[in-house]
Amino acid sequence: MATATISLDADSLLKQIQTLGEVGAETASGGRTRIALTDADKSGRDLLVKWMRELQLDIRIDRIGNIFGTLNASTDAGDQPPLMIGSHIDTVRNAGALDGCYGVLAGLAVARAYRSAGTTPKRAITIAAFTNEEGVRYQPDMMGSLVHAGGLSMTEALNTVGIDGTRLGDELRRIGYAGDMIPGTIVPSEYLELHIEQGPVLEAEDLQIGVVENLQGISWQKITVHGTANHAGTTPTRLRHDAGYVASAIVTFLREHVVGAAPETTLATTGSLRLEPDVINVIPRRATFTVDLRDPDEGRLRAAEKRLADFLVTIAASNGVTIEAERLVRFEPVVFDNTLANAIEASAKRLGFTYRRMTSGAGHDAQMIARIAPSAMIFVPSHNGISHNPLEHTDDDQLIQGAQVLLDMVQHRLE
Amino acid sequence: MATATISLDADSLLKQIQTLGEVGAETASGGRTRIALTDADKSGRDLLVKWMRELQLDIRIDRIGNIFGTLNASTDAGDQPPLMIGSHIDTVRNAGALDGCYGVLAGLAVARAYRSAGTTPKRAITIAAFTNEEGVRYQPDMMGSLVHAGGLSMTEALNTVGIDGTRLGDELRRIGYAGDMIPGTIVPSEYLELHIEQGPVLEAEDLQIGVVENLQGISWQKITVHGTANHAGTTPTRLRHDAGYVASAIVTFLREHVVGAAPETTLATTGSLRLEPDVINVIPRRATFTVDLRDPDEGRLRAAEKRLADFLVTIAASNGVTIEAERLVRFEPVVFDNTLANAIEASAKRLGFTYRRMTSGAGHDAQMIARIAPSAMIFVPSHNGISHNPLEHTDDDQLIQGAQVLLDMVQHRLE
Repeated sequence: MATATISLDADSLLKQIQTLGEVGAETASGGRTRIALTDADKSGRDLLVKWMRELQLDIRIDRIGNIFGTLNASTDAGDQPPLMIGSHIDTVRNAGALDGCYGVLAGLAVARAYRSAGTTPKRAITIAAFTNEEGVRYQPDMMGSLVHAGGLSMTEALNTVGIDGTRLGDELRRIGYAGDMIPGTIVPSEYLELHIEQGPVLEAEDLQIGVVENLQGISWQKITVHGTANHAGTTPTRLRHDAGYVASAIVTFLREHVVGAAPETTLATTGSLRLEPDVINVIPRRATFTVDLRDPDEGRLRAAEKRLADFLVTIAASNGVTIEAERLVRFEPVVFDNTLANAIEASAKRLGFTYRRMTSGAGHDAQMIARIAPSAMIFVPSHNGISHNPLEHTDDDQLIQGAQVLLDMVQHRLE
Repeated sequence: MATATISLDADSLLKQIQTLGEVGAETASGGRTRIALTDADKSGRDLLVKWMRELQLDIRIDRIGNIFGTLNASTDAGDQPPLMIGSHIDTVRNAGALDGCYGVLAGLAVARAYRSAGTTPKRAITIAAFTNEEGVRYQPDMMGSLVHAGGLSMTEALNTVGIDGTRLGDELRRIGYAGDMIPGTIVPSEYLELHIEQGPVLEAEDLQIGVVENLQGISWQKITVHGTANHAGTTPTRLRHDAGYVASAIVTFLREHVVGAAPETTLATTGSLRLEPDVINVIPRRATFTVDLRDPDEGRLRAAEKRLADFLVTIAASNGVTIEAERLVRFEPVVFDNTLANAIEASAKRLGFTYRRMTSGAGHDAQMIARIAPSAMIFVPSHNGISHNPLEHTDDDQLIQGAQVLLDMVQHRLE
């Protein structure tokens, strides 16, 4: 039986995570910065391509800079599409070493397991590193996988102007990663992404594996309350148009009546809130704040948006203020492929790992590839739920367990 | 009857308000800036002293720079203490022309009425302009009247270091207003202060005169909520320690359950609120905000403080956050002299003006002088309640009506 001889080289995987994590290192913080299409990103890409070459993968780069390394199948596989394992290697500023990189390098570990065993898979395995998942310099985020899935035209993507005024296409050519393959050429039979959770759920429940069955829809709004500034000591409550109080009442309502209506799934966060003129004894003239609503079910997400919108009308009238709500971001929830989720669960069970089915709260390339192929994700715990920070951490044994599930699952899919 | 010949010279009063309002003018905004003990304040003081001289008042300046101009009584008055009319002529940055100045110049108008009629009052009338009421440059505010009333030692006041690093005593000497009279020398029989309301109540009720019977107690606190920053998409609500939500819930509680417990008298304002890190998809790690509580009754003010304090304990426990409350300012309420308030009311009624008894929401020199003499205040409407702003406005006829009440009341007190 071929599967008996295919096993994970844990040391190589951990070593590569560490080595890639040293590219773009920030000595002061212990973090690293490899923002998409910078020189540091080029160095990371060069290292990845070198490692793909060492595994004798067939390397192709598309016009948006997505890198694909394919372990070819035995010749009798014919034209069957490959199984794809992907993620990204660009980072935010001062990042941890795991976000994205773990998934790409675990893909290399799967290829290495086949190579070391001298086994050719029945179908090809393609390891993908998608361009600009983080969206720090060029918007939107998850850009490479979005272009690959046909959700954004290549021309539009290449013409994106960054926060530093550069054109994405120019920077891509400058670092030598403007390939010639048409984006979307490689359509996989299935797509798997292994990732750190970037949240506290698995750690809180002391579980080893997250079987990600869906990805939350996201609704971002910027809300501005226009009231009237007045003296805190001389304005009776009944004559107030207090933008700060109204903002606070809305944030409180979000927790108590929007999250409260679906407490297991709906999330509401106000991360930013500012008052003007921001003076102790002046009733705020204006309050500006953000609302981040998430739910894995589109119907519930819409219901949450509606509850909020209805409350804005009510509280504006009762307080004599005007309220503007501006939509900043809206993504519908993504439901991953149930067959793949079941297969992940079966692998976790087979390997004796504790697991749960769960929702991804963050966005990932998998949500884009899900548009063109059955997709699913495997999560491992994030210590304290911290990510996008040098403190991002997952224990080595947890990283290895995740890669073992990925390898086991690939083997069973390719049997 | 002597009162028949004593009448207000409305034109002179309005002219002086305008002329003093041109000192320290900010051409761009239409406001003026005469912060205490600056060159502009000196210019304002020089003008006031010149006008006092024109009225042949007996001018005395004390060691903290308070200016007193006395219209002496007929010689048979003996050692009877004077009736005092006072306020201040320093301003905030970019102020209106009325706050403080109106009360001092209306005092001059009373003296002018006696002079023009050739009548000597039965008791002396002292017009006072107290140093540094606004407290912009040197803390505390209402400093001159506080020193006059014995609430702050002269030495401590003179040694106050301003926000610009200057010593108050040095600046007072520099502008030539370090007098030689010991503060507190002139203890009046009664103290009257005519002022714009700086609030919207009289205008909202279409009334001409406010009979101020008390002044609110003020409790200022700075509250800091220490929570935990986490990803907005991946942190379940039950695992959140959301400093921003907790802050909003407190602000909402203040309106609904602290003001709600005494809606006619207790005021609560959060004028300043800041979140950290203030990022749309990060649960706030820290929220810092101010609470301004006011009530004219000390018992109710304490009850409001206690309701807030109890809620801080409850919500900290239920959300797994810690909350610090730092007291910034605490003034007990001041109850003005009821006999004087009745006399103001009687004058308003006699002159056929509409009026109401009311609470002062802002602090005034009268609250300090109330420590050493029966005191009361007369308010006139403030358009839109605006003050500390070039848009501060009271119609000329309303300003004249207030001065007429003051003059009528003085005449009846001195009969």
